[in-house]
Amino acid sequence: MTTRLDRLQVYMEQHELDAILITQPKHVYYLTGLATDPHERFLGLVLSQTKEPVLVVPALDEEAARVAKGVREIVTHTDTQDPYAILKSILPTKISRFGIEKTHMTVSRFEALSAAAGAEQYVDIDEPLRVMRLIKSSEEIVRMRNAVRIIEDVLREGLKHVKPGVKEIELVAELEYQMKKLGSDGPSFDTMVLAGDKSALPHGKPDTREVRNGELLLFDIGVYADGYASDITRTFAVGDIGEELKRIYNTVLHANLKAIEAVKPGVAYADIDRAAREHIETAGYGPQFMHRLGHGLGLDVHEYPSVHGANREKLQEGSVFTIEPGIYVAGLGGVRIEDDVLVTASGVEVLTSFPKELTVIG
Amino acid sequence: MTTRLDRLQVYMEQHELDAILITQPKHVYYLTGLATDPHERFLGLVLSQTKEPVLVVPALDEEAARVAKGVREIVTHTDTQDPYAILKSILPTKISRFGIEKTHMTVSRFEALSAAAGAEQYVDIDEPLRVMRLIKSSEEIVRMRNAVRIIEDVLREGLKHVKPGVKEIELVAELEYQMKKLGSDGPSFDTMVLAGDKSALPHGKPDTREVRNGELLLFDIGVYADGYASDITRTFAVGDIGEELKRIYNTVLHANLKAIEAVKPGVAYADIDRAAREHIETAGYGPQFMHRLGHGLGLDVHEYPSVHGANREKLQEGSVFTIEPGIYVAGLGGVRIEDDVLVTASGVEVLTSFPKELTVIG
Repeated sequence: MTTRLDRLQVYMEQHELDAILITQPKHVYYLTGLATDPHERFLGLVLSQTKEPVLVVPALDEEAARVAKGVREIVTHTDTQDPYAILKSILPTKISRFGIEKTHMTVSRFEALSAAAGAEQYVDIDEPLRVMRLIKSSEEIVRMRNAVRIIEDVLREGLKHVKPGVKEIELVAELEYQMKKLGSDGPSFDTMVLAGDKSALPHGKPDTREVRNGELLLFDIGVYADGYASDITRTFAVGDIGEELKRIYNTVLHANLKAIEAVKPGVAYADIDRAAREHIETAGYGPQFMHRLGHGLGLDVHEYPSVHGANREKLQEGSVFTIEPGIYVAGLGGVRIEDDVLVTASGVEVLTSFPKELTVIG
Repeated sequence: MTTRLDRLQVYMEQHELDAILITQPKHVYYLTGLATDPHERFLGLVLSQTKEPVLVVPALDEEAARVAKGVREIVTHTDTQDPYAILKSILPTKISRFGIEKTHMTVSRFEALSAAAGAEQYVDIDEPLRVMRLIKSSEEIVRMRNAVRIIEDVLREGLKHVKPGVKEIELVAELEYQMKKLGSDGPSFDTMVLAGDKSALPHGKPDTREVRNGELLLFDIGVYADGYASDITRTFAVGDIGEELKRIYNTVLHANLKAIEAVKPGVAYADIDRAAREHIETAGYGPQFMHRLGHGLGLDVHEYPSVHGANREKLQEGSVFTIEPGIYVAGLGGVRIEDDVLVTASGVEVLTSFPKELTVIG
C-alpha cells in the first residue's frame, strides 16, 4: 500500500528536492499518525533522498512518538539542546533544494534552519500536502461522519434549552458542555449563537443578549473529533418571525439546495457558488449575501479549497466542503444554512442531516 | 501620558529603524486597544519615521477598527486586493532597517513583505514588546485579578460535582460550562482534570477515567477574561490517600511557599526556582520534579519570562508569573500546586487565594 509518506517521498524525487522538513503538527499527524503538540518546542519530520524518514521530538515525547508509522528513527532533544544542530546532523551535507512549509514556519525558525541547513534554495511544500489532504480516505470520511453526528446531537440537546429570556452565552455554555459530554475533542471554532438582529452579523460574538419571541436564532457550531472537523449552521424562528424573515429563510434554503444539486466531479467551485448566489440575487438579496459560499473541511475547520465565485478549479471525488449561503439584513436579522458535503463519483452526499425546513422553537 | 505606541516609536528611533510592522493580533490589541482576529486575512499596524501610525485592516473590520487609539489613518483591503501592494504605498520608499515580528511572521508572508518593502535589513522587534508586556499596568492587574477571581469561582463550582465514579471529562465539561457562565472569554489552555495515577502525567489528557476513592485529583485550569489569562493548579485528596501521598503533598506545598517567600525585585528567576527545588530535593523527590517552576502570565497564558534554574534575569516590580512546583510518582500519582504571583515593590502579592492545605473532597 502506498502511504502518504511514500507519496511525499515521490513528490520530493519528482521535484528534485534533496530534503523536506515537516513541522506542522497536523501534517506530522497526517503523515505518520502521531498526534502531538510540541507547543514552543521543536518537532520535525525529516525526509531526504539519502535516508529513511527521521522524526525529531522533544525528549518528553519520545514514548508517544513510537506510534509514528513509516518512521525508522526517532531523535530526541532536551530543552538545553539546540534542535537545529541535531537537524544538521540528520540532513544531507549539501542541499540544493529544500522543501519547507512556508505558510507555517516563522521567520525566526527559518533563520535558525537556514543557518544549520545552508541550502541553496527553499521551496514551499504546502501544495502537495494540500492536494493530498483534499481527497479524503474512507477512514477520514468515517471520522468526519462521526464529527457531524456529534455536532448534530449537540444541537438537538442545545435546542431543548431555548426559550425567551435565555442568554446567547448560556446556550453557548450548554452546547460546549454537550460537545465534551458526547466525546468530541472540543469546538472546532468559536461557538456562535446569535439572537435577533445580531444574527445579521456574519462574525458576531455571543454575549448576554437574550433570546426574544418573534426573532431569529442562529447557531454556527462545530467540533473536532478524532482530529477531524464538522461545521454546521442552522437558523430557527423563535415564535412568529413575520413574512419578510420567512421569505428570506426560504430564499436561503433554496439557494442551499440549488448549490447542493450542482455538486458533482468536474464542475467548478465557482459554479457551485453561482448556483446559490443567482437564486439569492433573483430574489433581490444579492448585496446581502456578501461572503463566499463555503470552504474545505477536514483536519482543519477551514482548509483548501475556498468555494467562491473566482475559483475555477474543478470538484474532485472524495473532497469535503461546506455550503453556507446567507442573507443578512442589518437591524432585522440574518439567515445562514450550512451543510457539509462530500463529492461522490455520481454527485454528492450531504453529511449533515439536521432538518432544514423553517422550524419554530422556544 | 506616554502610550505604548509612543514607547515603541521611541524604540524605533533609538534603534534606527525606518519602519515597524506589527501583525500579531495580541500586539495590535496591546498597542491600540483594538481586539480583532483577522484569521487568514492581513492585519497590520505600520509605524514609520515619516508618518503617523497607520492600521491596515480587512474591509469587514473597518468599523471595529475605529476604536484603535493613537492611529490616525485606517486603510482597508478587500479579499481581491493585495495587502502588500497597499502596504508598499504606506511604507517609506527607501527602508534601510525594518522592524518585524520574526517569531510570529511566516516565511510566505515575509517573502511577500520583502518583495513589497525591499528593505536592506529586517530586524526582530519581539524584544521591546516582550519587555513592555513584562511590566503590567494597574489596569492590566485589575483584569488579571478578575481572571483569577473567575477561575477560582469556577473551581469552587466544579468541586461540588466531584464524587467517586464521576469521569474526568464530565468535570472538564462542568468547569468549562462555569467559565462561560461566569463571564470569561473561555479556557486559557486545555482544561486539565486528572485522577489517580494519571495525576503523575504533567501533560496528561482527561478522558473517561473515573474519580476513585483513596486517590488524588488534580485540576490545572485557567481562563482568558477581558484578554488576560489566569492559571491555577490545585490537587485534592478523594477520601484517604495514605501516608506517602500526604508526605508528597506537604513537600510540594512547602516548596510552593518557599518559592513565594523568595519573590522580590532584584532576585533572579533561577533563585526562585532553586528555593522550591531545593526543598523537594532535600525530601528526596528531586528527580520527580522534572519541569521548570513557572512562566510569565498576561495577554498569553505562557509568556516571557520562563522561570527556570538557568534564568539569571532579575525579577522586576509589576511582573506576573506562575509558581508551580510538582512531584510526580509514576503509578502512584502526582501533586502540583500553582499560584499566580505579582512582584511588588516590597516583595510579592499572591493573586490566587484558593486554599492550599490538603483538602479531602468527594
